[in-house]
Amino acid sequence: MPITTIGLDADDTLWHNETIFRLTHARFIALLADRADTALMEARLAEVEGRNLRLYGYGIKGFTLSMIETAMELCDGEAPPHVVREILAAGREMLSHPVETLPGVVEALDALSHRHRLVLITKGDLLDQERKLAASGLGDLFAAVEIVSEKDRGTYDRVFNRHGTGPDEAVMVGNSMKSDVLPALAAGAYGVHIPYHVTWAHEVADAPIGHPRYGALDTIAALPDWIATASG
Amino acid sequence: MPITTIGLDADDTLWHNETIFRLTHARFIALLADRADTALMEARLAEVEGRNLRLYGYGIKGFTLSMIETAMELCDGEAPPHVVREILAAGREMLSHPVETLPGVVEALDALSHRHRLVLITKGDLLDQERKLAASGLGDLFAAVEIVSEKDRGTYDRVFNRHGTGPDEAVMVGNSMKSDVLPALAAGAYGVHIPYHVTWAHEVADAPIGHPRYGALDTIAALPDWIATASG
Repeated sequence: MPITTIGLDADDTLWHNETIFRLTHARFIALLADRADTALMEARLAEVEGRNLRLYGYGIKGFTLSMIETAMELCDGEAPPHVVREILAAGREMLSHPVETLPGVVEALDALSHRHRLVLITKGDLLDQERKLAASGLGDLFAAVEIVSEKDRGTYDRVFNRHGTGPDEAVMVGNSMKSDVLPALAAGAYGVHIPYHVTWAHEVADAPIGHPRYGALDTIAALPDWIATASG
Repeated sequence: MPITTIGLDADDTLWHNETIFRLTHARFIALLADRADTALMEARLAEVEGRNLRLYGYGIKGFTLSMIETAMELCDGEAPPHVVREILAAGREMLSHPVETLPGVVEALDALSHRHRLVLITKGDLLDQERKLAASGLGDLFAAVEIVSEKDRGTYDRVFNRHGTGPDEAVMVGNSMKSDVLPALAAGAYGVHIPYHVTWAHEVADAPIGHPRYGALDTIAALPDWIATASG
C-alpha cells in the first residue's frame, strides 16, 4: 500500500518540549520545597492538571493556571504572592522559549517532503504551536497544519481524508503511543512510535506489538527508510 | 457576483461572550476595590492584556493569567491569596459558562445553510470554542470550522480559498469591524458588520463607509435578505 501522507506530531517529536515542562516542574517544586515533599507535590500537580484538562485542554497557559491552583492547595489556600509571581513568570518564559529541533529532524523531513504530503498534527495552545513551527524553520515543508483539541481515531480519520488520500495511505509519527500511534492505527493508518527520553504521565500506553501497521524507531533519521519499506 | 460561502464570527456574533467577560471584569474590580479606583484598574488590565496578547493570544486562559498579573501589579506584587483564588475560580466559571445564542441566529443560519457553505472563523482558545460550538447546537450547520490565531487579510484569503470558491464569492459576517469586516474587505470578500451592544477596546475601528462590498445590519435576522440582494 503506498503511503501518500505523513502526519507528524510536533512537541517531543520535532523539537524539545517535555524537557522545558520538566524544568518548570523542578522550579515549581523548588519554590514550595518547604511545604511538602517532592513526590506529594508531583502527585498533586498531576491530579490538578488531569482534573483541569477538560476545561483547559493542552498547553502552557492551562499548565500555568494548574500550577497556581496546585500551589494554593499545597499552602491551604494561602500561597505567598511571590510564588504566584514566579509561576506566572515561568509560564511566560515557557511561551517564549527558543525552539530546538531534535537531531535528524530537518534532514528527514526535507527528504520526505519531496515525495509525500507532510501534515503537522498537534495538540496544545494554537498561538504557541504556530510560534514554534515558525521558529523551527520547518513551516515550508508542511502541506497543512492541524492544531486539534483531541487526538482520537476520528481526528486522524478526518485529517487524513481532508489533507491526503485517507488513513489507509497515511502514517502518523510521534512520541506518544497513546495519542499518536494507537488512535492512528485504529483509524486504519500506519503508526510509528519514536520515543522521546521523557514522557508525560498522561501519555503513557502499551505498545501494540505485532500490529501489521505498527513501527518503532529510535530516531526520526530512520523514518524515510521505514516508509520506503512499508510503501514497498 | 454570487456569494457561495459565508464566514461567520462566533463570540458576540452567534452567542453572548463579551457580557461574560464584562461580568468577570466587574468581579475583578470589586475584588480589588480598596486598592485603586475603577478607571485605573480598567486601564491597567487593558494594558496587561495588550502586552500579553503576543504570548497568550485570545481567550479565557490568557485573560485569567492577565487578571492575576494585573492584581499583582495593583497590589505592588503582594496580591492576597484569596484574590488569586477568586480569579482562578472566575476563569474556570467562564470556561464552563452556558452558551446562549443571540436572537435570530438559529433561524438565519438554518435558512442560509441550504444554499451556502457556512464557515465558522474565530479566534480564542481552541477547546473553549469547540465546546461553545457544540453547546450552541449550531455545529451541524457549518461545513467547516477554522479557529485561528489572527484575523488578517491573509487569514480570510486562505480560509475562503480552502473552504469555498475564493474571497471574491465570500462574505465575512461579524461584530468586530477591525477583525471581521476590514480584513475581509481587504482580501476582496464582502464584509457585513452586525454590532454587539458592547465591544472589546482592542476591536474598535471606523466603518468603511461607501465601500461597495460593505454592509451594516442591526440583527443577523436581516442577513439572508442582504446576501440575496448582494448576490444579485
